[in-house]
Amino acid sequence: MKKYNVGIVGATGAVGGELLKVLAEKNFPIQNLKLLASERSKGKIINYQGTDYVVDVATPEAMDGLDIVLFAGGAISKTLAPEAAKRGAIAIDNSSTFRYDPEVPLVVPEVNPEDVHWHKGIIANPNCSTIQMVVALKPLHDAAKIKRIVVSTYQAVSGAGKEGMEELATQTKQVINGEAIEPKTFAHQIAFNVIPHIDVFKENDYTKEEMKMAWETQKMFHDDDIKISATAVRVPVYRSHSEAINIETERTLTPEEAKAILAKAPGVILVDDIANNQYPMPVESSDTDEVYVGRIRKDISCDNGLVLWVVADQIRKGAATNAVQIAELLVKEGLV
Amino acid sequence: MKKYNVGIVGATGAVGGELLKVLAEKNFPIQNLKLLASERSKGKIINYQGTDYVVDVATPEAMDGLDIVLFAGGAISKTLAPEAAKRGAIAIDNSSTFRYDPEVPLVVPEVNPEDVHWHKGIIANPNCSTIQMVVALKPLHDAAKIKRIVVSTYQAVSGAGKEGMEELATQTKQVINGEAIEPKTFAHQIAFNVIPHIDVFKENDYTKEEMKMAWETQKMFHDDDIKISATAVRVPVYRSHSEAINIETERTLTPEEAKAILAKAPGVILVDDIANNQYPMPVESSDTDEVYVGRIRKDISCDNGLVLWVVADQIRKGAATNAVQIAELLVKEGLV
Repeated sequence: MKKYNVGIVGATGAVGGELLKVLAEKNFPIQNLKLLASERSKGKIINYQGTDYVVDVATPEAMDGLDIVLFAGGAISKTLAPEAAKRGAIAIDNSSTFRYDPEVPLVVPEVNPEDVHWHKGIIANPNCSTIQMVVALKPLHDAAKIKRIVVSTYQAVSGAGKEGMEELATQTKQVINGEAIEPKTFAHQIAFNVIPHIDVFKENDYTKEEMKMAWETQKMFHDDDIKISATAVRVPVYRSHSEAINIETERTLTPEEAKAILAKAPGVILVDDIANNQYPMPVESSDTDEVYVGRIRKDISCDNGLVLWVVADQIRKGAATNAVQIAELLVKEGLV
Repeated sequence: MKKYNVGIVGATGAVGGELLKVLAEKNFPIQNLKLLASERSKGKIINYQGTDYVVDVATPEAMDGLDIVLFAGGAISKTLAPEAAKRGAIAIDNSSTFRYDPEVPLVVPEVNPEDVHWHKGIIANPNCSTIQMVVALKPLHDAAKIKRIVVSTYQAVSGAGKEGMEELATQTKQVINGEAIEPKTFAHQIAFNVIPHIDVFKENDYTKEEMKMAWETQKMFHDDDIKISATAVRVPVYRSHSEAINIETERTLTPEEAKAILAKAPGVILVDDIANNQYPMPVESSDTDEVYVGRIRKDISCDNGLVLWVVADQIRKGAATNAVQIAELLVKEGLV
């Protein structure tokens, strides 16, 4: 079996650590592994499958000889992903830098695997809140054509990386001890609070996080007519995002049909047994790769409407797992 | 000034305590105060404006001689509210028992004050999640006729009373200490989790909490045509509920018009300055009486649509404050 030279840029962060876990769990065929990060992480030791690796600085030259480079996210992708591509590697990028570039495919393997074929060296990994939504909705879109999506999110602090998770832990203790709180990563207190603000505000008064869900869904569904309104909200949960979703479809889709479709949809686990209080929840989905869907019911406020509740681990399927799945797809299709 | 004999049933619970605080703050004209609760709270001492009161058992006979009885909620209302009415008092009931009874008005003073006039001894206080929604939406409904509401809630644990708040505190410490968690008040772990399930499930697979928002809004707006779909979710927040709301109106209403209307709406505080990261949040609205509205924007997924974010203290405006406001309205209208 062919093996690949794999680089990870941002190996020391929350997503970087999870990329390593997922690569190991899936036993990805790695020839050489290169762990890269910013200057201040240089020299750190990270163990992967029993071998210690020394973290090196992510530079253009570090991209030499790599087949696949997984970018955990952040500003560094902007300069380094094109450098990786220029040197013959395929960059799989978790940042938002290239997602809306018409020259760059945006891919969720369960949703639009065909789009990996037209890459030009960079493939973008969608936003975490988009990934879990499209995995749940694509099979329903195929069955009944979704015309409109209204979604409200309940997003974990892991979306802001290790710093976000540390801030929730720190603030929680501060509140318990009656100490003053000083927000750093988030604009306001996140412990025992919710914040209706993720990423920057755009001109239409939606946040960029909210608009990502619209732009990215349209791009991956190849459907500019689908209407999407999102409200993105940070909640004091460590690592799985939840979403309350109302959809309107062109053709009627009963809850029973939707459940039957989702029960066999790739990457989806149907958890919809309300008689036994079973529905998806963050604590039960954390540290897993699947998208959990439940609370499926007819939307009583419109014709041809359904309501769903969707939960997935933001660091796994929302970031690391999807990136590694793209790499596996490239291998399977002989594109690398 | 006329003074009234006031009873509080459920005086020792979270809402009961808040009823006393609100009565004191508003300096409600009380002649005699009778604090009532279940058998196990008999003999407890509660101080109100410098005087100690001994809690007595809530019985039919205890309703004798009262002008107004405030019921904090729970099953006891079913038997005792009619007893209070029979004895000439007006029962203001925070439970859901009588809300859908066509003989009982359901009242939010900012929304449908006229309905207090046709009471027959019992006036129902709406559900907390409904109250804050209708205070924010009624002025917009008057201006542009709302046809449809899609709402997702972020509800505090105070909705489950003192036990709910204690459970969040206990579980939070257990998670921090790595101890096992045993859910009691909530069906699942609530610390660092969200639970898409409040109250029991109905035949249409919505929860009763979700249906309350539909039924109660229709009743108070006197409009059975308004369509409402709610998803009610418990979040690890102590005492204010938040709601992401998408509305569709018959006439066009711009965000600017909506903001102007809400800026002068009774009981509403507009907090919508995204340039300075100002929007409503639970920690900033707790322990206040108003309904906070922000994140107002045009809904890009439909014509004539608006998106709003609404926050209010569940125990105050969502329960105690609204009940006392109904009592004040009765006094003002000479109905007691």
